[in-house]
Amino acid sequence: MEIATSPLLTDLYQLNMMQAYLDHGEVETATFEFLVRSLPAERGFLVAAGLDPLLDYLETLRFSEDDIAWLASTGRFKTNFLDCLATFRFCGDVHAMPEGTIVFGHEPILRITAPLPQAQLVETRVINLLHYQSLIASKAARMVLAAPDRLLVDFGLRRAHGGEAGLMAARASYIAGLAGTATLLAERLWGIPTYGTMAHSFIEVHDDEATAFETFASSRPEHLTLLIDTYDTEAAARKVVALAPGLEARGIRISGVRLDSGDLVALSKSVRHILDEGGLGEVTIFASGGLDERDLARLVASGAPIDGFGVGTCLATSSDVPALDCAYKLQVYAGVARRKKSTGKATWPGVKQVFRRYGPDGRMAGDAVSLEGDAQQGEPLLQPVMRAGQRVVPRETLATCRQRAADNLARLPDSLRGLEPKAPYPVEIAPALSSLADEVDRRLGLKAPAAP
Amino acid sequence: MEIATSPLLTDLYQLNMMQAYLDHGEVETATFEFLVRSLPAERGFLVAAGLDPLLDYLETLRFSEDDIAWLASTGRFKTNFLDCLATFRFCGDVHAMPEGTIVFGHEPILRITAPLPQAQLVETRVINLLHYQSLIASKAARMVLAAPDRLLVDFGLRRAHGGEAGLMAARASYIAGLAGTATLLAERLWGIPTYGTMAHSFIEVHDDEATAFETFASSRPEHLTLLIDTYDTEAAARKVVALAPGLEARGIRISGVRLDSGDLVALSKSVRHILDEGGLGEVTIFASGGLDERDLARLVASGAPIDGFGVGTCLATSSDVPALDCAYKLQVYAGVARRKKSTGKATWPGVKQVFRRYGPDGRMAGDAVSLEGDAQQGEPLLQPVMRAGQRVVPRETLATCRQRAADNLARLPDSLRGLEPKAPYPVEIAPALSSLADEVDRRLGLKAPAAP
Repeated sequence: MEIATSPLLTDLYQLNMMQAYLDHGEVETATFEFLVRSLPAERGFLVAAGLDPLLDYLETLRFSEDDIAWLASTGRFKTNFLDCLATFRFCGDVHAMPEGTIVFGHEPILRITAPLPQAQLVETRVINLLHYQSLIASKAARMVLAAPDRLLVDFGLRRAHGGEAGLMAARASYIAGLAGTATLLAERLWGIPTYGTMAHSFIEVHDDEATAFETFASSRPEHLTLLIDTYDTEAAARKVVALAPGLEARGIRISGVRLDSGDLVALSKSVRHILDEGGLGEVTIFASGGLDERDLARLVASGAPIDGFGVGTCLATSSDVPALDCAYKLQVYAGVARRKKSTGKATWPGVKQVFRRYGPDGRMAGDAVSLEGDAQQGEPLLQPVMRAGQRVVPRETLATCRQRAADNLARLPDSLRGLEPKAPYPVEIAPALSSLADEVDRRLGLKAPAAP
Repeated sequence: MEIATSPLLTDLYQLNMMQAYLDHGEVETATFEFLVRSLPAERGFLVAAGLDPLLDYLETLRFSEDDIAWLASTGRFKTNFLDCLATFRFCGDVHAMPEGTIVFGHEPILRITAPLPQAQLVETRVINLLHYQSLIASKAARMVLAAPDRLLVDFGLRRAHGGEAGLMAARASYIAGLAGTATLLAERLWGIPTYGTMAHSFIEVHDDEATAFETFASSRPEHLTLLIDTYDTEAAARKVVALAPGLEARGIRISGVRLDSGDLVALSKSVRHILDEGGLGEVTIFASGGLDERDLARLVASGAPIDGFGVGTCLATSSDVPALDCAYKLQVYAGVARRKKSTGKATWPGVKQVFRRYGPDGRMAGDAVSLEGDAQQGEPLLQPVMRAGQRVVPRETLATCRQRAADNLARLPDSLRGLEPKAPYPVEIAPALSSLADEVDRRLGLKAPAAP
């Protein structure tokens, strides 16, 4: 059974609610929106990602005979529900911000309009796919801003939370501007460039380090990067210098060396010096080892002569912010706007659009969240991507998404480009939206309307 | 293509190293060990998990014709390597701590002994599977200790890092002692009990809350838990009281109510009062909403009358510690012990065993890490689980793993039972191991041996 596409990869309550909706004929059209409620203090902006895998999920969501037989065997569900699952096809409409779009709190990233049971069923996986990829694209974008001219490579698969996470981290971070990944399956699936050096074990297998370098070089002469921190980094750099002429004579050029531990500022400087003195001025220095964007910024600011970074655990787990306060919330059912008012978790009702304005310098100047159709200035960010369960725009290449992220990052206000956001980006809740919220609250007989 | 079982779900460098090993006939037996180097300050102990899915991976690891054709098309690999992949079967031996075992820093959790290229190839997925599940089992165990007599349910799928993570979190947290999960696929795959209530959207769809409760009750009368925080929690509790007699007359008993926001101490007390006054003393109160183990401990200590908790994001992302400092390290190759000495990342060489001693009260009293075969007191924790690529012990049920975790937790010293560990658990590096490390260092011509 494939986990990623199983319709049972959902919360039990989705099926319980579907059963109840079917029992009571509550199958009118509903609109749900996926959004991040408020940004964590560590993030000045987010980058939307994960749409294309989500559309694949929606297009192919099916309950197999086995799935239905198993659901029947649990004794929890009635025939009307099981019959409905047998022919289930997602036939809703989807509007979304394209992948690579910069997004802020309270802004819907995706909107699903479908018969209520369908729109409800997909909730869990909608959040699961969009949250994680947007989380990682956002983390990766900070790394790109922190080390703009360095080669950045995702090394995160091993400590990512499971296989799908590792794979999706490669995808999301590539969209956000990383050069590539170590994860081979990401190259196979999406053509993301892969990078690979060697592990400490390769060095340790050999009785001496120089032999290890030479052995590896003779088998893997392309993009040859030697790992030099297994025992004594500077000594290893001198071995690299000593080996270079012999390799050169065999037509093998050393491309780079990699540091994975120790004081990277001091070591990169001394290694650079050793390499330069040894005539290896073109050999690059690549560093890794638990680095996050603050480390990258610090290393860049220190003048450490590091040409590229492998970023692993901090990237693939978004270690400082491993989750966002996101939700997939009902906005309209049967033509009537809805909202919840739970303390600290209220949402704005209605079918929304996000309008983005730009200043004369082309930079982002402010967003307005309003109702779809409201006459707001600015570029509407949510676009139709699926109608009646079918994609209405061609599948975007990752290159397109990546270019969009780069364009978006270039238009980010200076106040948001640093690792500590200087001022929150202005996101206005338009009057049309506040009025609708008041109206919903009056209808529900709730107390004075409160801003979410 | 199924992600979870793809042999390409690995780092490019594993294949690069395999190519080099094959080229040079470096196919002698290697032993690698998976361990967490040192525990984070927030964890006094860890719980090993993930072994059974890893053994499945090792048993079924195959390169399909498609995989090999694609690898060939990259132009990176030679025929000797591609031919080797076509017939690849993992044929190594595996020793491991059984799932549910409590483990500390520097203690190998798993050991793989196999021809070097095989043992190297599997590194990425070994770490990926064991790290995440042990991370989550460890987090879940803290929750169990913090709220020992409450019903604890995993609600983490939506914000877990991808689908596999959500599923594995359900599994690992059940091993550690949670009562179950909301993730339906975990019930299908492993028989883990599932729990489900209702979402706010279900309430909002209906024009009034009481109608929503009644509609849901009539379709889902079993284990009926009503979500009462959508608008006004106390008012909703009074609606529950008002509805109960009518439902009772139809044979429907309200099992519980759920709070998902607000001041859970105050609200649980007032809701308890309302329910008790209304004759619903047996209706339980279930709480959720971004809770971690510190929240659980605080709520329990406050006397909040909460019978159970849904734990989601904090559990499935292990939010305070989203990754452990773990590694899969070469210990022996071709009969010779190996170690790396990278700053801050040195490991102890040799094929190791962990010996656990217990005090007269049956509690864990101290561990010794030594060489396999060393005459140490205590219970050896690493057991043979696979030989020549085949399981040598029957697949354990989750019930067995769960019982082991419960037994282990019961034997934890008091100093480690609180959320703030009072003193580190004593893990001794036995003289046999230090001697071997010295010997390896002398052989490598390294400076004075340093403790890892």
